Amino acid sequence: MTGNTFGKMFQIMTFGESHGKAVGVVIDGVKAGLPISESEIQKELDRRKPGQSRITSPRKEEDKIEILSGIFNGKTTGAPICMLVWNKAMDSSKYEKIKDLFRPGHADYTYLKKFGIRDYRGSGRASGRETLGRVAAGAIAKKLLAKKGMKVIAYTKQVDGIKAKKFDENEIERNPLRCPDKTAAGKMEKAILKVRSQGNSLGGIVEIIARNVPTGLGEPVFGKLDAELAKALMSIGAVKGVEIGAGFSVAEMKGSECNDEMFSSKGKISFKSNDAGGILGGISTGQDIVARIAVKPTASIALKQKTVDTAGKNRTIKVEGKHDPCICPRIVPVAESMVALVLADALMMQEARQRNNKI
Amino acid sequence: MTGNTFGKMFQIMTFGESHGKAVGVVIDGVKAGLPISESEIQKELDRRKPGQSRITSPRKEEDKIEILSGIFNGKTTGAPICMLVWNKAMDSSKYEKIKDLFRPGHADYTYLKKFGIRDYRGSGRASGRETLGRVAAGAIAKKLLAKKGMKVIAYTKQVDGIKAKKFDENEIERNPLRCPDKTAAGKMEKAILKVRSQGNSLGGIVEIIARNVPTGLGEPVFGKLDAELAKALMSIGAVKGVEIGAGFSVAEMKGSECNDEMFSSKGKISFKSNDAGGILGGISTGQDIVARIAVKPTASIALKQKTVDTAGKNRTIKVEGKHDPCICPRIVPVAESMVALVLADALMMQEARQRNNKI
Amino acid sequence: MTGNTFGKMFQIMTFGESHGKAVGVVIDGVKAGLPISESEIQKELDRRKPGQSRITSPRKEEDKIEILSGIFNGKTTGAPICMLVWNKAMDSSKYEKIKDLFRPGHADYTYLKKFGIRDYRGSGRASGRETLGRVAAGAIAKKLLAKKGMKVIAYTKQVDGIKAKKFDENEIERNPLRCPDKTAAGKMEKAILKVRSQGNSLGGIVEIIARNVPTGLGEPVFGKLDAELAKALMSIGAVKGVEIGAGFSVAEMKGSECNDEMFSSKGKISFKSNDAGGILGGISTGQDIVARIAVKPTASIALKQKTVDTAGKNRTIKVEGKHDPCICPRIVPVAESMVALVLADALMMQEARQRNNKI
Amino acid sequence: MTGNTFGKMFQIMTFGESHGKAVGVVIDGVKAGLPISESEIQKELDRRKPGQSRITSPRKEEDKIEILSGIFNGKTTGAPICMLVWNKAMDSSKYEKIKDLFRPGHADYTYLKKFGIRDYRGSGRASGRETLGRVAAGAIAKKLLAKKGMKVIAYTKQVDGIKAKKFDENEIERNPLRCPDKTAAGKMEKAILKVRSQGNSLGGIVEIIARNVPTGLGEPVFGKLDAELAKALMSIGAVKGVEIGAGFSVAEMKGSECNDEMFSSKGKISFKSNDAGGILGGISTGQDIVARIAVKPTASIALKQKTVDTAGKNRTIKVEGKHDPCICPRIVPVAESMVALVLADALMMQEARQRNNKI
Repeated sequence: MTGNTFGKMFQIMTFGESHGKAVGVVIDGVKAGLPISESEIQKELDRRKPGQSRITSPRKEEDKIEILSGIFNGKTTGAPICMLVWNKAMDSSKYEKIKDLFRPGHADYTYLKKFGIRDYRGSGRASGRETLGRVAAGAIAKKLLAKKGMKVIAYTKQVDGIKAKKFDENEIERNPLRCPDKTAAGKMEKAILKVRSQGNSLGGIVEIIARNVPTGLGEPVFGKLDAELAKALMSIGAVKGVEIGAGFSVAEMKGSECNDEMFSSKGKISFKSNDAGGILGGISTGQDIVARIAVKPTASIALKQKTVDTAGKNRTIKVEGKHDPCICPRIVPVAESMVALVLADALMMQEARQRNNKI
Repeated sequence: MTGNTFGKMFQIMTFGESHGKAVGVVIDGVKAGLPISESEIQKELDRRKPGQSRITSPRKEEDKIEILSGIFNGKTTGAPICMLVWNKAMDSSKYEKIKDLFRPGHADYTYLKKFGIRDYRGSGRASGRETLGRVAAGAIAKKLLAKKGMKVIAYTKQVDGIKAKKFDENEIERNPLRCPDKTAAGKMEKAILKVRSQGNSLGGIVEIIARNVPTGLGEPVFGKLDAELAKALMSIGAVKGVEIGAGFSVAEMKGSECNDEMFSSKGKISFKSNDAGGILGGISTGQDIVARIAVKPTASIALKQKTVDTAGKNRTIKVEGKHDPCICPRIVPVAESMVALVLADALMMQEARQRNNKI
Repeated sequence: MTGNTFGKMFQIMTFGESHGKAVGVVIDGVKAGLPISESEIQKELDRRKPGQSRITSPRKEEDKIEILSGIFNGKTTGAPICMLVWNKAMDSSKYEKIKDLFRPGHADYTYLKKFGIRDYRGSGRASGRETLGRVAAGAIAKKLLAKKGMKVIAYTKQVDGIKAKKFDENEIERNPLRCPDKTAAGKMEKAILKVRSQGNSLGGIVEIIARNVPTGLGEPVFGKLDAELAKALMSIGAVKGVEIGAGFSVAEMKGSECNDEMFSSKGKISFKSNDAGGILGGISTGQDIVARIAVKPTASIALKQKTVDTAGKNRTIKVEGKHDPCICPRIVPVAESMVALVLADALMMQEARQRNNKI
Repeated sequence: MTGNTFGKMFQIMTFGESHGKAVGVVIDGVKAGLPISESEIQKELDRRKPGQSRITSPRKEEDKIEILSGIFNGKTTGAPICMLVWNKAMDSSKYEKIKDLFRPGHADYTYLKKFGIRDYRGSGRASGRETLGRVAAGAIAKKLLAKKGMKVIAYTKQVDGIKAKKFDENEIERNPLRCPDKTAAGKMEKAILKVRSQGNSLGGIVEIIARNVPTGLGEPVFGKLDAELAKALMSIGAVKGVEIGAGFSVAEMKGSECNDEMFSSKGKISFKSNDAGGILGGISTGQDIVARIAVKPTASIALKQKTVDTAGKNRTIKVEGKHDPCICPRIVPVAESMVALVLADALMMQEARQRNNKI
């Protein structure tokens, strides 16, 4: 129940700080007999690492995964799986200079107030590097889901007011934005490069879709599937909003517009629309699960900002370093991972219940 | 960890169905020595009951709370507090007629698919009546928070495109919308009455503010305060989106706009703005916590809709009965309660940690 | 995770005090579709109620169960099941007289120290009446287990040095001791009546056996089946020790004596002995689960005892009232219930895992 | 809630197998600001490592601890603490030979049945090496408790019928038995050496005492302090029984003998005896917490035993290798750790409650 644990039956605990020895994760509850290799975990980690493109941080981090436990002869044994990435060549010097300053938009102030001590090197525990453990665990969750035919994809939907209007799934991994609309991706990239040249950053919207999710996942009335997804996605650093299906647009809808009518064709029950985003009463309908998250602009910007120091004096700060001008493309694998973790957990809960139902 | 439990240290479990014998809640973890009377719980329940105004369901439900345990000589003892409301004069006859039909926008289909059985009387467990237990527990959480000077308020922010532009806190409980802008409230009411007369319903946006929250609440990296709030709020029946602070508008912001600069004045550290909504890195900053939820239009509408029955045949349905044309005003106390429950829980977690810190 | 919750997937929360309005339980996680009637719950409650025989407390409590939720048309729906018993005709007057005294062997002192307030009427929350909720929940767990062919039985094994030497299962419910050896039961009864006439009480040993438990239940390394059983059984009021299989006698064994050798006969793998008590490495072996608990003599005795009062003054006390001279026979259904709850929970966990394994 | 997690507020998750890459632990919930060095953790690990004396396994394992996260400038930050020991020079060859055989008294059969796959190298996850993580976490828990004046000690109380009759605390770490009675320790050692020479092993009893525990720890009615201790101690590999205070001897006591009378002297409330073992109603009384565990003889013995193989054929087995002839001395630090973990957790729970009480 502590803060660094997530999930109930498919449970993870992440550990590690940005400039500590390592960042990693322990996963408990993974079924025995699932083939897992470091290379398939690595593939997902490579999608979140910096230095992938012109619009991500140019830092060079190898981020090589190492599996320490839970695998025997290439298969899971049912024991906890510990995986980690060693932090290499971390340069903490630029953080030394600002260790007494609270960076605006960062968790510096709140961490110090909560814990009375702060690992200021590269944001410490509050760093995005913590998501490495999430993505490594997510890779296993995705594989588990894939065995049941499920698939989770995410992509950049909007940046700087530019919206993806086309949906070409194959395009997603081809452009640095991870945007399914090539034209929009090009415009977004330009906008980002421009803003970066001004020492500034941009936010955006990432959409996540889960396909082939069976009907029945989710545990009302508090462990509803949408509630768990909201928690999972809001726990990602830069996320300030989560919506499911029609999301905030329901505020301007009428019941007749928002309700998804049902019909039957050739013995199969379907819905005419998916404003529900694949979830009714907190339980999956069998339609695609659709969620969107609001991603704030990277807090680390080169522009001068007003702030205070730990002694309570007024100061100014310019945050140096190699930061992502827009974090959306790198949040994509993290968001996918969090959704996959929620689904893997919900699946196990429902399987326990279903088997039981057959009594 | 089951679906009907919420919270870690201040933990609740709700029970009961719409047309069953009773709906209620058991709360565990409430400090000993807190004075609690049925009348103060009742006051909160009265805010969520139907029949309050022209724009709520005209059903007459007394919803009288009864405390069964955990109180001795008017004070909490530290033992679990069970509270319930007896369901009286429930008329299930109109549900008999549509028991084989899946009402669009409702959880009928998903409950049947998940559990293989469905209590179809008044939506059963999926009914909004379940929130009675949440509001009763929320009343105790609010009282606990009030002892620390904290206050949680919610109100209708937007309906049918009409937005509250003024904020008069005293106005909130004076109009049927629970809207802090009297003029806007009048317009919203008209819109709702019109749509109801058409057999339809409206969605809206409810905003929640928590004041005087101390710095340091929230348990990163998964039990972040915003993550817990997102889960809590998304677990409310009609909610399809949750945002914190600037929320989805961060998608169109630059870092320099979104970061809340800090300053010091007379020895007090403050923020120039509150785009963060009072939470940085998942930990409260000491500013107001600000959240908004997207509320979908009531699914029960009198208009004819296409659907299927349990045998998989195409059918049409008109949902009879006395339903709220816009649920926002009655969601207000539920949203307040969920936020209060999250804060009470986070407070206890932090207190355990702080005492510890003093070692 | 609070103190009044037990179980993970088959989860219960009990509530209520001895002389409060009611005592009860909410169960979450029960499969949908299980037929449940109040009469079958009542049958188990009748086994724990006072006034059953000469050697139980002569108090007359009807203890009639009422199911408030989670059942529809006689079957579970998957929603939480709330069940309670109203406390009737409770006479708190004799507790008024000793409300400032700490009864030796009771939790009076520790409750006051922990909570700063104490419901002194009939031991309040620390009363054995709390186990009503456990037995009601246990009745459902037993029914669930019975569907899989499992059975949990308990019985008095030893009182005042008199040990059951025969095992006639049918005899258990025929004598007031719930002892499988009729002759021993007669001797135990005499010993108890004699000690009661002296204003004193006796302890004893209760043994619990679970039959037809499938191989594979238990979640190492902390959620081992024996660890969960130990917690469950030690949580019963008067229990001061728990042992599994050969238990404390292993301290005087050699490895060659303690190890249960295995053999195969007609394609079936078996063990030559069961010193392990049906659990190896925290996982069920498929043999009978065997556990024993040490039950302390009832703390409420008529003899004069030295104690102190809440003002810290030396005092003496005689505990009046109708108390059980030996609680073993009434602990039997409670112990069965706790074991059944642990097994039902472990079964659901393993079912989730197994289904998963088939991927 | 998964099986490899223990504790609620002071929570640990262990990982690793005997012959895998590493064994370790992640601890979450440790207060910030606590000074921790690898050397103080190492000191505790050295107490459990093999090769310490003539009566432990002569295997040479360095078991050097490495802290990977959660410490900054020598102090805890409130972030999860990952610690591990690399498994070096593990020889799995002798396990290859018996990989198809179920060793009597071991978890081979149950692990294979539960998970469908088994890491047979050195017992895999079921190995005693897993307790390394417990002892490392326990070292931190002990330090936390020490700040409050608390101390947990354990020692061998009985082996082969030889009981410790004297209690010289300083003696404990001076003899290989970790027995507080030097004379008894000598006899025990002889008995062990004799039995080892016969290819056999011995069980025993270990006692644990916790001193200066404040009144009020424990969360009734299921999270009672004795219930949590029972779970914690029973989760240790070789333990088959747990008793608190007078333990199983209560079965032969009368109430007047078993109740600990109270008295007041110079304004201090005390108990005349401690049959309760420092716990009443599941809450600490302020007296010493006293618990005992029954430790079974090491399952790995050189004598020929009957068993079956994975194909279901009758076979015989002699377990080769360097095994402890009596595991008691090495269980001592593990038992201390588990008790310390339970107390650290209970302390945080109570601190949250107490602070709250002061509202």
